[in-house]
Amino acid sequence: PLIAVLPGDGIGPEVTTQARRVLEALDLGLDFEEAPVGGAGYLASGRPLPPDTLALAKRANAVLFGAIGDPRFEALERQLRPEAALLGIRRELGLFANLRPATLFPGLESATSLKPEAVDGLDIVIVRELVGDVYFGEKGRRTNVEGLRQGYDVMSYNEAEVERIAKVGFEMAKRRKRKLCSVDKANVLETSQLWRDVVNEMSTDYPEIELTHMYVDNAAMQLVRRPNAFDVIVTGNLFGDILSDQASMCAGSIGMLPSASLRAWSGDNGMYEPIHGSAPDIAGQGKANPCAAILSAAMLLRHSLNDEASAQKVEKAVGAALAKGARTADLGGSLSTTEMGDAVLRELA
Amino acid sequence: PLIAVLPGDGIGPEVTTQARRVLEALDLGLDFEEAPVGGAGYLASGRPLPPDTLALAKRANAVLFGAIGDPRFEALERQLRPEAALLGIRRELGLFANLRPATLFPGLESATSLKPEAVDGLDIVIVRELVGDVYFGEKGRRTNVEGLRQGYDVMSYNEAEVERIAKVGFEMAKRRKRKLCSVDKANVLETSQLWRDVVNEMSTDYPEIELTHMYVDNAAMQLVRRPNAFDVIVTGNLFGDILSDQASMCAGSIGMLPSASLRAWSGDNGMYEPIHGSAPDIAGQGKANPCAAILSAAMLLRHSLNDEASAQKVEKAVGAALAKGARTADLGGSLSTTEMGDAVLRELA
Ligand SMILES: CC(C)[C@H](C(=O)O)[C@@H](O)C(=O)O
Ligand SMILES: CC(C)[C@H](C(=O)O)[C@@H](O)C(=O)O
Repeated sequence: PLIAVLPGDGIGPEVTTQARRVLEALDLGLDFEEAPVGGAGYLASGRPLPPDTLALAKRANAVLFGAIGDPRFEALERQLRPEAALLGIRRELGLFANLRPATLFPGLESATSLKPEAVDGLDIVIVRELVGDVYFGEKGRRTNVEGLRQGYDVMSYNEAEVERIAKVGFEMAKRRKRKLCSVDKANVLETSQLWRDVVNEMSTDYPEIELTHMYVDNAAMQLVRRPNAFDVIVTGNLFGDILSDQASMCAGSIGMLPSASLRAWSGDNGMYEPIHGSAPDIAGQGKANPCAAILSAAMLLRHSLNDEASAQKVEKAVGAALAKGARTADLGGSLSTTEMGDAVLRELA
Repeated sequence: PLIAVLPGDGIGPEVTTQARRVLEALDLGLDFEEAPVGGAGYLASGRPLPPDTLALAKRANAVLFGAIGDPRFEALERQLRPEAALLGIRRELGLFANLRPATLFPGLESATSLKPEAVDGLDIVIVRELVGDVYFGEKGRRTNVEGLRQGYDVMSYNEAEVERIAKVGFEMAKRRKRKLCSVDKANVLETSQLWRDVVNEMSTDYPEIELTHMYVDNAAMQLVRRPNAFDVIVTGNLFGDILSDQASMCAGSIGMLPSASLRAWSGDNGMYEPIHGSAPDIAGQGKANPCAAILSAAMLLRHSLNDEASAQKVEKAVGAALAKGARTADLGGSLSTTEMGDAVLRELA
């Protein structure tokens, strides 16, 4: 199988290197091909998502993605900014299902700002819709009737879009504790009301799943109050963006959280990336935590290569390294990015 | 001065009674007039915001609001649901500026799920825009070209709308630590990009204020990681809804948090309400914490009656009652709503 490696910007290359080392160590006969993306893509070709990079991503069996974002390019027009690459790949590859697990590895309790009773045993998955919502609706600037500058973005979902992501939520819940919490803002938004209606309609197909609905403001609150009371959360693109970053804090560090972006429960063309950004402030210093990238590689094994055994092997190796005290700076330790990678590789061996 | 009292649904009446007692005890010669709103309004007149209630709110010098929301009416069409009353008053009275302070009263550290170092000295204000954004844009259902049901909501801001709320943010920062954090999602949304541009343009008028910008996903994360690093946050309606509920958890209980909805920094027609909802599960049981309502009355004194001294008296009385151990159930205590009101009144005397 061919793995497209898109390291991107900032700490992206550093953490991706470690994830690739881990995949290589498993000796699965994988081929790797690298291409620039984000600010790096713009520097290389004048476009954040160079056509060759997109073609590689489409050709590959899976994409291992680093991070994008570079303050030097923030003032460019929207389609030239690094973020456009990420949104472009998601859209072009049809990666509508973003899985964001948040697990607290034993030993990391001290790294979170939440009290132990709130995060003890934390093991949640946020299923975020990734190619619709206000992210991809019509948007722009105009001058309104009073001559004032106005910015607008259209939020919307249709029933098919809701159905396919809700199905992922239900299926995920089936494999776990059979509890699904759908998050929306149906008391204000028509988009959310449709979302809620469709999810309710589908629930008759999943009588064994206990479905609840929660308004997004309440969900943000409950994710602080008692995050470990959640199991599977399914939500739209914008709310999922906010809630999954928030949930990451329960896991001790955003440096621990992987993600998978899929167009089907398993199979080709998934993209795997840490949920953290490019962290320009620490880029190139060997300080970044590679665990999120390594755990993303584990998700790649699970979802794109259908190799659950290897996926678990990698996850266990990360857990074991942490249990032995391996810690990068974000976790209060002093290991470098490479040293943390070494620690995981030792456990894998 | 005339105070319109709109107790609303669920625990609204219980907590509003205590807030009114506190205002009465101050002996400021206030007149009170009560009217139904929300589910109570619908029951009384078939409309969540009866015309008489709206007229009273407009006529009054300030509105003391309880809470709305009643599961019995959730299935009604949108304009008949309790929430429509709240959105209607905000809009009809032009209450564009929603101030949501989150303060940790000494002694409540144990009630929060965050570690002491994260919430120690917490004292932030979220300035939320309240009559624009995706809340009030065009919205509806339609059948799309493929024959699928679709829900949509238009998000937008114009420069005047951003300016007036940003001004409140800057002015608030001026009176505090001179730090303003503007929250948006400018890397994806045009509405946010306009927001950011306008806030940046205004910052030249406030050279003494240190302005920063943060993406909403990062803000949700930082509000868990180190909430006490924030001072004043200014943001749009939707993001403000989410972040302020989230921030409330830092204060120990959502039962502690007041809010003011204003159409000017001070003056008539402000509306004051606890940020908690109607909590149908505990309604009528005398369990609700009245502190948020009482602290909202303090904000009423400050902003609508220009009586800073009385406002501080009330806030100190709440602090003193808590310091002596007065606690309702949400704070781990056993006082009833009335007993908590008594405790505050004793300190006021
Ligand atoms: C960089 C940005 C466009 C992106 C998003 O909002 O989806 C990021 O925050 C994420 O969550 O992957
Ligand atoms: C009840 C609801 C419409 C309201 C809002 O979203 O504004 C509430 O959550 C609030 O924050 O006051």
